[in-house]
Amino acid sequence: MSLIVQKFGGTSLAGLDRIRHAARRIVETRKAGHEVVVVVSAMAGETDRLVGLAHDISPDPDPREYDVLVSTGETQTSALMVMAVQALGVPSRSFTGAQVRVRTDTAHTRARIQAIDVAPIRDELARGAIVVVAGFQGTDQEGNITTLGRGGSDTSAVAVAAALKADWCEIYTDVEGVFTSDPNMVPAARKLERVSYDEMLEMASLGVKVLQIRAVKFAKQYGIPLHVRSSFSDEEGTWVVTEEDVMERLVVSGVTYNRGEAKVTIFGIPDTPGVAARIFSEISDSGVVVDVIVQNVSTRGHTDLTFTVPRGDLSRVLPLMQRLADEFGAAGITSDDSIAKISVVGLGMRDHAGVASKMFRVLSEEGINIEMINTSEIKISVVIEEKYTELACRALHEVFELGAGTGISEES
Amino acid sequence: MSLIVQKFGGTSLAGLDRIRHAARRIVETRKAGHEVVVVVSAMAGETDRLVGLAHDISPDPDPREYDVLVSTGETQTSALMVMAVQALGVPSRSFTGAQVRVRTDTAHTRARIQAIDVAPIRDELARGAIVVVAGFQGTDQEGNITTLGRGGSDTSAVAVAAALKADWCEIYTDVEGVFTSDPNMVPAARKLERVSYDEMLEMASLGVKVLQIRAVKFAKQYGIPLHVRSSFSDEEGTWVVTEEDVMERLVVSGVTYNRGEAKVTIFGIPDTPGVAARIFSEISDSGVVVDVIVQNVSTRGHTDLTFTVPRGDLSRVLPLMQRLADEFGAAGITSDDSIAKISVVGLGMRDHAGVASKMFRVLSEEGINIEMINTSEIKISVVIEEKYTELACRALHEVFELGAGTGISEES
Repeated sequence: MSLIVQKFGGTSLAGLDRIRHAARRIVETRKAGHEVVVVVSAMAGETDRLVGLAHDISPDPDPREYDVLVSTGETQTSALMVMAVQALGVPSRSFTGAQVRVRTDTAHTRARIQAIDVAPIRDELARGAIVVVAGFQGTDQEGNITTLGRGGSDTSAVAVAAALKADWCEIYTDVEGVFTSDPNMVPAARKLERVSYDEMLEMASLGVKVLQIRAVKFAKQYGIPLHVRSSFSDEEGTWVVTEEDVMERLVVSGVTYNRGEAKVTIFGIPDTPGVAARIFSEISDSGVVVDVIVQNVSTRGHTDLTFTVPRGDLSRVLPLMQRLADEFGAAGITSDDSIAKISVVGLGMRDHAGVASKMFRVLSEEGINIEMINTSEIKISVVIEEKYTELACRALHEVFELGAGTGISEES
Repeated sequence: MSLIVQKFGGTSLAGLDRIRHAARRIVETRKAGHEVVVVVSAMAGETDRLVGLAHDISPDPDPREYDVLVSTGETQTSALMVMAVQALGVPSRSFTGAQVRVRTDTAHTRARIQAIDVAPIRDELARGAIVVVAGFQGTDQEGNITTLGRGGSDTSAVAVAAALKADWCEIYTDVEGVFTSDPNMVPAARKLERVSYDEMLEMASLGVKVLQIRAVKFAKQYGIPLHVRSSFSDEEGTWVVTEEDVMERLVVSGVTYNRGEAKVTIFGIPDTPGVAARIFSEISDSGVVVDVIVQNVSTRGHTDLTFTVPRGDLSRVLPLMQRLADEFGAAGITSDDSIAKISVVGLGMRDHAGVASKMFRVLSEEGINIEMINTSEIKISVVIEEKYTELACRALHEVFELGAGTGISEES
């Protein structure tokens, strides 16, 4: 008998028929002899509806009250799920974040989990019940309702799994797993059987919206295997596991893209200490998150600085940069919002030189100019013109032999 | 400075514009120098929507989970109301039933309030905030979410007012107050300025759906003056107060009707001890609430027994009665679902003989046959043919001089 946490996302709970469908799956797992704890999101669209109400009634809704409001979506699905499970003849009970004491810090709308009291969950499991926990929500030290931010139900599920020392955590979603690339962009993309936490983290941060980054970090920290799978299919999805448990060690396991960013360059700024720090602290203070940063070597005491920000924040960043450029006596600023970031991710590249050169060569052969380069231990990202996104993804997917046709790729 | 509890019902909160409108009224009261605690219902229609979901997903939804689900409606409006008040520049904070420890018994879907911890409310009032409490909900000893049953937000409001020793409690609704009769039925009906708790209790139990009976009982018990008024008008509504505070002592203060009942008669049952007890315990066990009961004196050791039940329960009661009639060797049973119960209510009739005879005489003059009679200390009810409802109400309203044209009626 295993103890399994099953998390169902909003699209898996969109409407009573889907809730019933999920309930049948949960009950099947229980009847196969496992203990089951379920974590639910709100019904698809409900959180957006509530957020809309908040912003309609107030230009700047109080974060404390925002959390009271939007957390009700998960509370509703938790009760409905219990009713659906009970209708199948299996005992079940729901818990709100407050009831199972999902203790968080006080950072409303983006709170972090500090502890969970699993005693009431264990009591219910002991009497044979399926436990359903409302995701996304907790309470702070004073009993104020908090929420974990968008996608927080993934984090709730992993935190519950960690606190219960569950055998694994299943994440039911509307895709079949983690793919080597976006199948809409790269027809040859195939589902990965296993992927490591670190690879998943890089992919998540690069825009593969299958799992919330915090949930993956949590799972890695506590060693909880994740199984990302579709709630509309019985097929196995993708397991996210420790590096040791990844059987097929690919040099590159995925090619991802992000077309949501814009590029800003500030030319001819003095290459003196503190200038870059000043620029990025001003951007950070304005609430904008910078992604890639590149600075060239300086010539004659001046240098150029380029960075990317979310496209929607460009109009906020430009006046800020103009002011700083004036202040520093810089030569000028330019920006470009028609860019794409293309990345290859893989544990294998850690041990293998040549991934970068292979990547740059294939892009060059396709006539694609690389505007920026950024690397981590298991990831290489380049910024290119947006119009080449599809071409770049397909070419890289092919050169790193990720396609369904080639089977499992050999180490190069 | 007074401490005032203001309760807003679902129609007063149906949509963001109405919530904003209510918020302006609340802030006005605060700016007039009073401390204000607000108790909110769910937005009109929301509770029905949630109840519908529960019954769609399960033929017999678990009462515990039902309460988790339907209580979210009030939680949502509490947060939205706080946002609306804050948008007007006044500090405010919401509390769920759990947060303000509205402790109830464990009777899910119809729980009773046992205690409220007003310390957090007092803290917020002390810093000048308007406190908004989600009505209708509480938690039991184990922390399970409970609800107080339909209209329970009235009870929440009065309980909060009692626990805070508030000066009074305003009930905002979609009618202008308590009327001498239904204005749709009796055009001459007028709004009562003041009415006693006991009169209000009789009227509420007779189908005037302005206030929940439990809320009136609570208010009477703790001596909380209630002010029932329209949220769409600035006019004074009706005060529900102690008998001593009712200035205009009318013999009869209201004429009410109820067309929701059906009548059952069982003929020729043996007039021996225990027969009636047996009949009504069987009905009670089936979950049906009996209203009026009449038994005539027996002739030759047999008697006839007539009673009324909610019309919708008639089909459940009839087979039960047939079985009992067979068992007792009764002569037979009949039923009639085209009846109406007409009542006159008034503290004054306690001291004045002649109310009953006046009532019966005017009905007789109109050619209306009285089928059953039932009385309490301050109420006389008769059951008549349904088609005479309007005629009976108008005639009684006139004979007891309740009309707007006659002004305050003299004692007769």
